[in-house]
Amino acid sequence: MAAATASSLTAACVSSLSAHSSTSPAPDHINCSSPFAKFSGLKLASSPLPSHHTQEKKKRSSGSRKAHHVTATAAVEAPPKTDVSLVEKSINTIRFLAVDAVEKANSGHPGLPMGCAPMGHILYDEIMRYNPKNPYWFNRDRFVLSAGHGCMLQYALLHLAGYDSVQEEDLKQFRQWESRTPGHPENFETPGVEVTTGPLGQGICNAVGLALAEKHLAARFNKPDATVVDHYTYCIVGDGCNMEGVSNEACSLAGHWGLGKLIAFYDDNHISIDGDTDIAFTENVDQRFEALGWHIIWVRNGNTDYDAIRQAIADAKAVTDKPTLIKVTTTIGYGSPNKANSYSVHGSALGAKEVDATRQNLGWPYEPFFVPEDVKSHWSRHTKLGAEFEAKWQEDLAAYEKKYPQEAAEFKSLLSGELPAGWVDALPKYTPESAGDATRNLSQACLNALVKVLPGLLGGSADLASSNMTLLKMFGDFQKNTPAERNLRFGVREHGMGAICNGIALHGSGLIPYCATFFVFTDYMRGAMRISALSEAGVIYVMTHDSIGLGEDGPTHQPIEHLASFRAMPNILMLRPADGNETAGAYKVAVESRKRPSILALSRQKLPHLPGTSIEGVEKGGYTISCNASGNKPDLILFGTGSELEIAYKAAEVIRKEGKTVRVVSMVSWELFEEQSAEYKESVIPAAVTSRVSVEAGSTFGWEKYVGSKGKAIGIDHFGASAPAGTIYKKFGLTVDNVVANAKEVM
Amino acid sequence: MAAATASSLTAACVSSLSAHSSTSPAPDHINCSSPFAKFSGLKLASSPLPSHHTQEKKKRSSGSRKAHHVTATAAVEAPPKTDVSLVEKSINTIRFLAVDAVEKANSGHPGLPMGCAPMGHILYDEIMRYNPKNPYWFNRDRFVLSAGHGCMLQYALLHLAGYDSVQEEDLKQFRQWESRTPGHPENFETPGVEVTTGPLGQGICNAVGLALAEKHLAARFNKPDATVVDHYTYCIVGDGCNMEGVSNEACSLAGHWGLGKLIAFYDDNHISIDGDTDIAFTENVDQRFEALGWHIIWVRNGNTDYDAIRQAIADAKAVTDKPTLIKVTTTIGYGSPNKANSYSVHGSALGAKEVDATRQNLGWPYEPFFVPEDVKSHWSRHTKLGAEFEAKWQEDLAAYEKKYPQEAAEFKSLLSGELPAGWVDALPKYTPESAGDATRNLSQACLNALVKVLPGLLGGSADLASSNMTLLKMFGDFQKNTPAERNLRFGVREHGMGAICNGIALHGSGLIPYCATFFVFTDYMRGAMRISALSEAGVIYVMTHDSIGLGEDGPTHQPIEHLASFRAMPNILMLRPADGNETAGAYKVAVESRKRPSILALSRQKLPHLPGTSIEGVEKGGYTISCNASGNKPDLILFGTGSELEIAYKAAEVIRKEGKTVRVVSMVSWELFEEQSAEYKESVIPAAVTSRVSVEAGSTFGWEKYVGSKGKAIGIDHFGASAPAGTIYKKFGLTVDNVVANAKEVM
Repeated sequence: MAAATASSLTAACVSSLSAHSSTSPAPDHINCSSPFAKFSGLKLASSPLPSHHTQEKKKRSSGSRKAHHVTATAAVEAPPKTDVSLVEKSINTIRFLAVDAVEKANSGHPGLPMGCAPMGHILYDEIMRYNPKNPYWFNRDRFVLSAGHGCMLQYALLHLAGYDSVQEEDLKQFRQWESRTPGHPENFETPGVEVTTGPLGQGICNAVGLALAEKHLAARFNKPDATVVDHYTYCIVGDGCNMEGVSNEACSLAGHWGLGKLIAFYDDNHISIDGDTDIAFTENVDQRFEALGWHIIWVRNGNTDYDAIRQAIADAKAVTDKPTLIKVTTTIGYGSPNKANSYSVHGSALGAKEVDATRQNLGWPYEPFFVPEDVKSHWSRHTKLGAEFEAKWQEDLAAYEKKYPQEAAEFKSLLSGELPAGWVDALPKYTPESAGDATRNLSQACLNALVKVLPGLLGGSADLASSNMTLLKMFGDFQKNTPAERNLRFGVREHGMGAICNGIALHGSGLIPYCATFFVFTDYMRGAMRISALSEAGVIYVMTHDSIGLGEDGPTHQPIEHLASFRAMPNILMLRPADGNETAGAYKVAVESRKRPSILALSRQKLPHLPGTSIEGVEKGGYTISCNASGNKPDLILFGTGSELEIAYKAAEVIRKEGKTVRVVSMVSWELFEEQSAEYKESVIPAAVTSRVSVEAGSTFGWEKYVGSKGKAIGIDHFGASAPAGTIYKKFGLTVDNVVANAKEVM
Repeated sequence: MAAATASSLTAACVSSLSAHSSTSPAPDHINCSSPFAKFSGLKLASSPLPSHHTQEKKKRSSGSRKAHHVTATAAVEAPPKTDVSLVEKSINTIRFLAVDAVEKANSGHPGLPMGCAPMGHILYDEIMRYNPKNPYWFNRDRFVLSAGHGCMLQYALLHLAGYDSVQEEDLKQFRQWESRTPGHPENFETPGVEVTTGPLGQGICNAVGLALAEKHLAARFNKPDATVVDHYTYCIVGDGCNMEGVSNEACSLAGHWGLGKLIAFYDDNHISIDGDTDIAFTENVDQRFEALGWHIIWVRNGNTDYDAIRQAIADAKAVTDKPTLIKVTTTIGYGSPNKANSYSVHGSALGAKEVDATRQNLGWPYEPFFVPEDVKSHWSRHTKLGAEFEAKWQEDLAAYEKKYPQEAAEFKSLLSGELPAGWVDALPKYTPESAGDATRNLSQACLNALVKVLPGLLGGSADLASSNMTLLKMFGDFQKNTPAERNLRFGVREHGMGAICNGIALHGSGLIPYCATFFVFTDYMRGAMRISALSEAGVIYVMTHDSIGLGEDGPTHQPIEHLASFRAMPNILMLRPADGNETAGAYKVAVESRKRPSILALSRQKLPHLPGTSIEGVEKGGYTISCNASGNKPDLILFGTGSELEIAYKAAEVIRKEGKTVRVVSMVSWELFEEQSAEYKESVIPAAVTSRVSVEAGSTFGWEKYVGSKGKAIGIDHFGASAPAGTIYKKFGLTVDNVVANAKEVM
């Protein structure tokens, strides 16, 4: 294959290569496209192309895009050889499983699976190491379909590969109620699916996270004489993924980190929902990825040139210090005589007539959902192969354990997903006499205490480490050449950061990722945060500067509606601790919530440690921190969260002096409170007490739930302002006096 | 200057130029960097560099970054000549106004203004056309400080240029309560500031929108013999802006659209909050922008090589079919002997001692906030100049009006910001007998009706035009060579789309931008939407597929918490119309709301036209669509919005058959309802009626406000599912039967 590669380079390429090889002894980073040289990519298959592909190629050759870079490598793995006709049959099986499932559901996206079936086949049948009977085997290669709408590709592959999660019946239930084959890939529904994709660009970022996790664990645990972490991460991205800014963010980091075992296939089919990508996407994608530090390969004919795909993967593997983008030019809806290469095949069933025509065109005489016996038989080996892969790894692990018992213990503890016994004891404790501090600083104390006892904890900030207070002091930075370290430096890339952390969390290796920025900038990363919640990725979001309390930076930086907006989001914990003990409690909850992400909203400004706060209280979500009523019927209930709990606490003291009984309730997490028993909730907020006032430096939206129709919610239902924090608090009525005044009105 | 440019090219460049000029008669697109050639950029100033700059340069030359591309141009405007020492004095004035203001506030970001003062001076003093006494003069050049934290740069420039909005007193009130110099640039606080920046990456996208608006209007109104639209858009972006994905999205579109009058300065200072950008940002920015279709110029010494900055701007202007990125290598905190070129000068006051040292270092003997007389005198000419610019334009407009009265009338009508008389009559009207339809289709009818009467309406979708139903049928696509058209094709770039639309809206030329995607993907663009709300940009967000009603695409595509999350956001209208009349009403409200953005949540699925719905009702936000009680005390109030209003309506019919009086209330916009009088609200939701049930296919979060503690909210407080829409509605209890059952429980 190496010879074929060399001969496949264009003259221009070869000339560059020879001209420069003298300065570069190992010719594995040869840039073979000066901007004036025409790029040719890998050798075209000698078989004639189907007519519509030829048309497409012609059309494109007149376009403005030019590929930019290619790498030729000397060291090439020989891919396993399979009879070409059987490969073709397998690929068509994948195509028709997708076509038939979409047709039966009368809903879905047949175009991508039809175009990507060749690369899908080669990946799952020839390249990837996995164990279909144990989809969670740690050392498996990961596959992410970033263009998640093409999920029938992945379902078909999982089906052929022998995953129990996708039986023939599941394919027939595509997109139906409670099926294991939902409309986009969902890790929590379908074992074998690593992450949840569909919102474009997320998947490639998840893949960056998966590859980061592998590189980190490999650096921590592998030894010169013993390897226990060693897998690739493959990903298919579409034009849509490449248009999304989030993918540029994560891919810039992937290049920076040199994630050499990340191999992304760019399904370059030139079609998106609105038609030809020329209407909105004429950038030079190859060149952009090269600028991001990626290794670029172009497979000109991804429809039928299987050897070129195989070679590209081998070349990608040979470059170990850069992620690789394999641009695979395909025809969307390949095989459909009337709809291929058009947007109409992107997201709709072909229709009975066109399905027939496609069967005719590709010579597929079989009934729907049929898998020919020879294809079935060919794929059946993966059950045995997979078991062997896993058994071999188990052997390696056993050998490793003998040589490195301490490291093996930590490694196995991580992989178990269980938290080390007694870890909670590491959390700092505070009394009202402890020196007051901003909860962002108290958060830093928690992180640095926890990292000593949690081998899985790692994370970082989007260029605000010194403001978010998220540096792990006993570790250095995770960088290209220091991947065993645990401080991640995300740059100013919030959305990519969240999506990368989803990948780390879903690597399934016991890693607990946290990430940080200002709370208001959750607006930039909400797409990823929702996927954390949906896909059960227990990411910890450390969100500081959580209110107008940040002061002078002004309304662009002051969150207002953010608490409410996350309280409304399913399966994510919104925690707003008030002091040291509550911050510790928030971390206890967050670390334990491995299938539910947590958001910690933390103050920029200094706060006192309040009497009555506790870790246990935080675990209940809402609890009484102080009450001077003898029974369960105080005259007034004051609610506060975070930095305003102090205000509620002080207001209560004022009102009590006037002979009233007042309860102060910390509502640190509404979600956790709602999960408590009715008895508990009544014990904290008795229905009979209707004099209620809440105070929170954010939108009052939703507070009616707790203050009721007779109560009052003090908050901010407009944007913030640029001024010192104390001034803004006063001007906006977030004061003890105002709470007292409102309390008097409702009593 | 042309000669200087030619001589400033490196040997490699010149050789490329001569080698290829034969094939390219006008040598204005010469690529002079083969990947092997060293890039040299514009000529270095002959004056020796200050020592810390030299150090910095040394450090960088060992880095991995290499600039990629440069363009030499023949046609060059001669910049006005000013005494160099005066220029330097002016630049130092800018630096110290920033230093002093940050010092007085003890808060802010001195680093950027100190580094960017030279380009700031050149732009505002030598290049830009504006009228300080009329900051809203239409044909002014626009300036956007995308790195908004450096706002003291802009305030200093506005002050020197003679804008009334930034007096000396304002500089002294930097970041204080109610000052006109808030912590980040805010268009609604400071005339002369075009857009609101601070959240990184937004500003450059706004600049793309401003440049798009100019290109569009120029194409529509300019004539071969008469120009009335002709301005540049300048922008300063920092490393942070360039890391954010949103900027890549918008810049890809800027390249695609060929926005030749967009000139962005990249403040390449190699420092971000976390320190040297090498820790997270080692991509080749130049090459990436080149891949995006930009023209790239590098000013190697942006600290003191003023001529290089001037030349770069001239070169940028000479390339008319591409936006230009001028990479200006600067020293953050230039002049501060101990803090320059470090993160410590990024976001904190220098401190008295370092301020003194900086004064010493730059030879600045003056007291804080002092503007030397010669500097003041020099800048004073801009008042006269600006008046002349505007007067000349007014003359041109008058001449244009004589030749092209019809076009001039439309142009002036647009610029007035007033909506044409009678435009509302164009909105379609429906009766219950009209054929039912999805509100996304009814939205399309509104858009296509409105575009006939609203010359400012333009917009498009993030690659979902055929799903969002947003195509304007009487127009083609706005593209590089068809910029007079009004369908914008954003590609799959939601965040960039929103931010570009903010720029279009804030161009101040009567353009009314709309943009579209699936409602769930507001998660991707929330950063821009919040800036719409804050900066009073009346963008219309057309958000279709607004619930589980989209069916099979599943939970990644089904909004749940989104309605609540926007109801909580200040100054944005969340509208969820139920049928044809309500959709028309939503457009009436949205078009009229020029200082408040609107979100229209629209159904994928077909809905009937309900009796009782009306445009007037929508304007009230909440209103009774049917009630069989004679007075204002029905037995039950049923609330619904959007697609669930039909369910409420049908449930009422069932319950009425049992002899009860039931009111059905459409809560199409909570914000508008809350703005009504107490009497009106009581007339719709009488306090005495506590039997209340709401039904909405989304989170119940917040509904306590209307259903009260005795009522019930039917909704979805978990993620959606992949299945046909009808099935999901049934499984999740969004049915007439379930509403009836709940109603009986509360009655």
